[in-house]
Amino acid sequence: MARVSQAHLDARRRQILDGAARCFARNGFHATSMQDVLREVDLSAGAVYRYFSGKEELIGAIVGEVLGAIREAFEEAAGQTPPPPPDVLVPQVLTMVLGMGRRMGAGDESAFPRLMVQVWTETLRDEKLARLMHEGYDAVRGAWVRTVVAYQEAGVMRSDVPAEHVARTMIAMAQGFAAQRALFGEVPVTVLQDGLRALMSMDADGAPARREPAEAPAGD
Amino acid sequence: MARVSQAHLDARRRQILDGAARCFARNGFHATSMQDVLREVDLSAGAVYRYFSGKEELIGAIVGEVLGAIREAFEEAAGQTPPPPPDVLVPQVLTMVLGMGRRMGAGDESAFPRLMVQVWTETLRDEKLARLMHEGYDAVRGAWVRTVVAYQEAGVMRSDVPAEHVARTMIAMAQGFAAQRALFGEVPVTVLQDGLRALMSMDADGAPARREPAEAPAGD
Repeated sequence: MARVSQAHLDARRRQILDGAARCFARNGFHATSMQDVLREVDLSAGAVYRYFSGKEELIGAIVGEVLGAIREAFEEAAGQTPPPPPDVLVPQVLTMVLGMGRRMGAGDESAFPRLMVQVWTETLRDEKLARLMHEGYDAVRGAWVRTVVAYQEAGVMRSDVPAEHVARTMIAMAQGFAAQRALFGEVPVTVLQDGLRALMSMDADGAPARREPAEAPAGD
Repeated sequence: MARVSQAHLDARRRQILDGAARCFARNGFHATSMQDVLREVDLSAGAVYRYFSGKEELIGAIVGEVLGAIREAFEEAAGQTPPPPPDVLVPQVLTMVLGMGRRMGAGDESAFPRLMVQVWTETLRDEKLARLMHEGYDAVRGAWVRTVVAYQEAGVMRSDVPAEHVARTMIAMAQGFAAQRALFGEVPVTVLQDGLRALMSMDADGAPARREPAEAPAGD
């Protein structure tokens, strides 16, 4: 058998993973067969099974990639000094995550959120994937806690609230928005930016917002 | 055959649905077999198949119940006049939703979120369930838009932001928090309440928060 370079092996593996991700994003882990993946990547069974023993191993690899990519986006966004305010930071990380679907060649910015929701379900039934998920979430939470502490130390956020609670809340907004993208497709990231800004304009005790907007309130 | 009352039929149907929900919350839709459901409800196959033709029909019924219960909680929470502020309203609706898991007899407040994440995945591959999901989401969004308009009309929230964007953002927070409950189990609702309060203490433009907390900032 001809010797093939590591670069070739890596590229072939990548080709299979990208094709599988497209199939999974489209039809879900369970409704996708290995036959579907073979058709999508246009390779023989022999070529694909050289890299992955079967669908379970492919799912495991995709889950690892999705979790890794999300973790990277959240950590990168949180690494900025000084940190942008939440209404900039959360939309930023979502834009990064949505862009991953495009880069995967899925040609659709809801592909990645669709994969993500499936990854969540998959971790509910698989201990090993659940551990990977926990590990990634711990890292992300740690990075975002540091960001929240920076807000509090700069005096732009009340500091009588545990930074971890704020970090979890900001991550929840991003997760929930991604779920809406997966389920309803069309929602632009600016929706979340607007919403977060409006919430930030309120007082926790319901007192009037500081700044009255220049525009008149909408009729409805 | 003895004639049985409608009440008996309803109770039996309920018993099967509750047992199936417990199985699904524990092991997921796909890893649960009809045998698992029969064991859980302690009924014969004949008794169960009189009510449901198979697993797909059971899944459809559970998805309908989960979506209906979520919709009811969100609509009920939004129906209060005047509406409580977001840092009260969002935790309220989550407490209602988490309580549903307990009422289902699952004995675990993360059971309902686990079901919910699975329902999301299921709607990705099933047109009929997706329509049900869209319908429920439209109703919930409509109710929460009315709440946001009430904030804006009362002058407690800036009104130069479309109410729908704020409603979607608040719903995203609840969805993301429920996802965290499904995936990580232990997170109490007060975490989101704290986080939302802290975000509400900020200015969208990053200016210092109005009220300095009485307590000293935490060391870390």
